[in-house]
Amino acid sequence: MLQVSVGKRIKQLRIEKGLSQEEFAFNCGLDRTYITSVERGRRNISLATLEKIVKALDISYSDFFNFKES
Amino acid sequence: MLQVSVGKRIKQLRIEKGLSQEEFAFNCGLDRTYITSVERGRRNISLATLEKIVKALDISYSDFFNFKES
Repeated sequence: MLQVSVGKRIKQLRIEKGLSQEEFAFNCGLDRTYITSVERGRRNISLATLEKIVKALDISYSDFFNFKES
Repeated sequence: MLQVSVGKRIKQLRIEKGLSQEEFAFNCGLDRTYITSVERGRRNISLATLEKIVKALDISYSDFFNFKES
């Protein structure tokens, strides 16, 4: 399921950047509890939300999606 | 805006596969009018919908997102 893979990928990249969920959520303009559920693969996020997250990770979409699907 | 870039990318890849919107919509399990509005960048689609579309295009997510943002 894509939302599970995307959640894991966000968590991985956030941790690589040394950011807490709280710091990262602030950078995205989203709520910390929302980021928690996204990372757990529990949210079927929209492109607009994905855009905020990928921009906050400062990565290209192609690199963001360069992962094995779970 | 990501939804505009994604819509253009879907249209480009669908045409490269020689599929009509109707044929492609059928392969995705979505409505033809819905695909029309997605391709026009008018829909803030979710990951679940993106997953159906990318699978129907038979491409990796990384290749799908390998485009310049508009």
